[in-house]
Amino acid sequence: MGETLIEKILRANTGKESVKAGDIVTVNVDRVMVHDIFIPFVKDKFEEMGFRKIWDPEKMVLIYDHLVPASQKDDTRHFHAGDEFAEKYGLTHVHRADGVCHQLMTEAGYVKPGNVVFGTDSHTTTYGSVGAFSTGIGYTEMASVLGTGKLWIRVPETIRVNISGTLPANVTSKDVILRILGDIRSDGATYRSLEFGGDTVENMSVASRMTMSNMAVEAGAKCGLFAPDEKTCEYCEIPYSEMEKGLRADEDAEYVQILNYRAEDFVPVAACPSQVDNIRNISDLAGIPVDQVFIGSCTNGRLEDLQMAAEVLKGKHIAPFVKLIVTPASRKIYEQAVEKGYIRTLVEAGAMVTAAGCGLCCGRAGGIMTDGEVVVATNNRNFLGRMGTSKVNIYLASPRTAAACAAAGKIVVPEK
Amino acid sequence: MGETLIEKILRANTGKESVKAGDIVTVNVDRVMVHDIFIPFVKDKFEEMGFRKIWDPEKMVLIYDHLVPASQKDDTRHFHAGDEFAEKYGLTHVHRADGVCHQLMTEAGYVKPGNVVFGTDSHTTTYGSVGAFSTGIGYTEMASVLGTGKLWIRVPETIRVNISGTLPANVTSKDVILRILGDIRSDGATYRSLEFGGDTVENMSVASRMTMSNMAVEAGAKCGLFAPDEKTCEYCEIPYSEMEKGLRADEDAEYVQILNYRAEDFVPVAACPSQVDNIRNISDLAGIPVDQVFIGSCTNGRLEDLQMAAEVLKGKHIAPFVKLIVTPASRKIYEQAVEKGYIRTLVEAGAMVTAAGCGLCCGRAGGIMTDGEVVVATNNRNFLGRMGTSKVNIYLASPRTAAACAAAGKIVVPEK
Repeated sequence: MGETLIEKILRANTGKESVKAGDIVTVNVDRVMVHDIFIPFVKDKFEEMGFRKIWDPEKMVLIYDHLVPASQKDDTRHFHAGDEFAEKYGLTHVHRADGVCHQLMTEAGYVKPGNVVFGTDSHTTTYGSVGAFSTGIGYTEMASVLGTGKLWIRVPETIRVNISGTLPANVTSKDVILRILGDIRSDGATYRSLEFGGDTVENMSVASRMTMSNMAVEAGAKCGLFAPDEKTCEYCEIPYSEMEKGLRADEDAEYVQILNYRAEDFVPVAACPSQVDNIRNISDLAGIPVDQVFIGSCTNGRLEDLQMAAEVLKGKHIAPFVKLIVTPASRKIYEQAVEKGYIRTLVEAGAMVTAAGCGLCCGRAGGIMTDGEVVVATNNRNFLGRMGTSKVNIYLASPRTAAACAAAGKIVVPEK
Repeated sequence: MGETLIEKILRANTGKESVKAGDIVTVNVDRVMVHDIFIPFVKDKFEEMGFRKIWDPEKMVLIYDHLVPASQKDDTRHFHAGDEFAEKYGLTHVHRADGVCHQLMTEAGYVKPGNVVFGTDSHTTTYGSVGAFSTGIGYTEMASVLGTGKLWIRVPETIRVNISGTLPANVTSKDVILRILGDIRSDGATYRSLEFGGDTVENMSVASRMTMSNMAVEAGAKCGLFAPDEKTCEYCEIPYSEMEKGLRADEDAEYVQILNYRAEDFVPVAACPSQVDNIRNISDLAGIPVDQVFIGSCTNGRLEDLQMAAEVLKGKHIAPFVKLIVTPASRKIYEQAVEKGYIRTLVEAGAMVTAAGCGLCCGRAGGIMTDGEVVVATNNRNFLGRMGTSKVNIYLASPRTAAACAAAGKIVVPEK
């Protein structure tokens, strides 16, 4: 019996002869990410455990993203705790306002295909897009990893998702992952590896794949993997060598479930209030008045997302009552979007463009809403209270759909 | 005995033969501005007073600036109250996220030389920069103006400020107004008109004059006036006609005080914690470590301010521990700054650039600080608790000084 992609990654990492789903293995950690919200807790726990040094300071990345710019008086205490930790333990990889952690981890070259990576944020699954095993852990586990460089995990079973054919022009990878979430539900992949394949995903950009790996955790998945290809290696700035070529599931790999999709069947969809798996076609929602639109986050704040929004809004203006907030996922993306003219186009169309970071996605400021209001948002969670009161209605959709809704002032199907 | 500029403006407005300081006159209001924070109160009071229509809806401007993007769940209620008010009373001039009210009032052509303008914000004095009499009023008075188009005022006495010569290259109009504030103190011009003149101010851009009119209120002044000139009329997109040429004080006007400055004597200064008139030379403050820098607001968020900051930071990076937040005063300025490359330069240097609006100046979000932290900021007030806790130390300075401090990570004298 052949191996799944996660089995291949973990076998290579552990140096074992064979690794199968259900095995307990101790992995050698290639990289860890700690973000601002958890740094004070990681710091305290790390010292409480009696560690005096980080196993390899070069392998730790500290990122301030959820709390910048600070919206509460206690936020800056997290920065001071992080700065002290970095100074004390000799960290060199500290990003104080460069963008969302999950964007920076691959964009800045910290994660490569085949790596094993842990982060303190649940959407650490994002790096599956470049063929790394990456997942979120709590601050106690993180403290232990920082001291030892190791962590035990149970090798996940795999759900294989095959997609073949050409997506309709108004459908993005966000619509694809939302549809899959609707089909397998929010607990349908609990502790499993979602493995995406087929010519449709092979034709996707790395950015589009990131959106899908990012939301894999919304089905409970431990990871959301894509086999690395030439595009991946180009993005990661490494040669496409035998190692990367070997990082793909065997044809006779064992899956707990196989899902097959025809790309042509996908349509623009949204996750409706207030569950990520409450998926409906945009055409069924058309006409619902919209108060605010948010385009950004680690799910959909990349250059192709801003490009998509700019194309939709070029020469138009958002509806008078709508607030449109655009937040690039990273400083680099912001710079590129300025260079390409997307920022100018979006601002002219009426958008409020914010600094790169988590922004409204984590509901800390910059677009908080109140009872009865409707927001169409490109991020990954529409849970109660995530963007204001518990009676805000959050619809999760693609940047293409979101931009079209901003222009119309109501939910509309984006043009093909 | 001749007339001061405020006497000229009010005589023309009232049609009287003579208007002298101390007179009570009823003015014909040319324009009013209501901003998001006060709209629910203005609305309630207006209806409680029994008015059924606005005297002239064309003359009212409604601006959402302090609360966008919303940082608290109740903020959006203000927008709904405003939208309802605009709909009910037929307002056509509504700006929902276009920038700071005081920038928009002149930039969008709502205020012209000689106008009498009231606004619900204290920094309404800003339009004195184009030779208008403008000042802040409370929401009860505003409700009454909306119903009647009139308001009584006592004609202010005038303090004349003459400045002659050439300012040093590292000194801006912000340094000039801060020094004047230090000299006359925060109550030194209470209910008086500050009238600026001399070849130094004649050589200033309208944008630089706006900074001075804006902060006139920090000395308690009712207004801060500049005689309109060709530059003013070009900015306001009107011909420089006899009317504008006549809007200047007579040589034998009667002043309660005359201050004379030599431009060459000015140096970069800051208003130190926590009073606007606690002015010290930057050279005396050099070396104080800085946690954050804010460049923006109705005082110093204009194109020339962003240009100044970009020139200082071109090819440099801010100090690692510093947060630099840049907030253009308006959408138009944001667009121009993108076009000119200033935004790109600032982002590359490590700045977080936000959407246009009041931003951190009013302390609602986007850079909140905590006890013991130091911020160098270009706005107009360093009162206790304005940018976080009451133990944040706020130094008000020019954009040139602020940018230099961001690069150095401490207070430094900007290069000449």
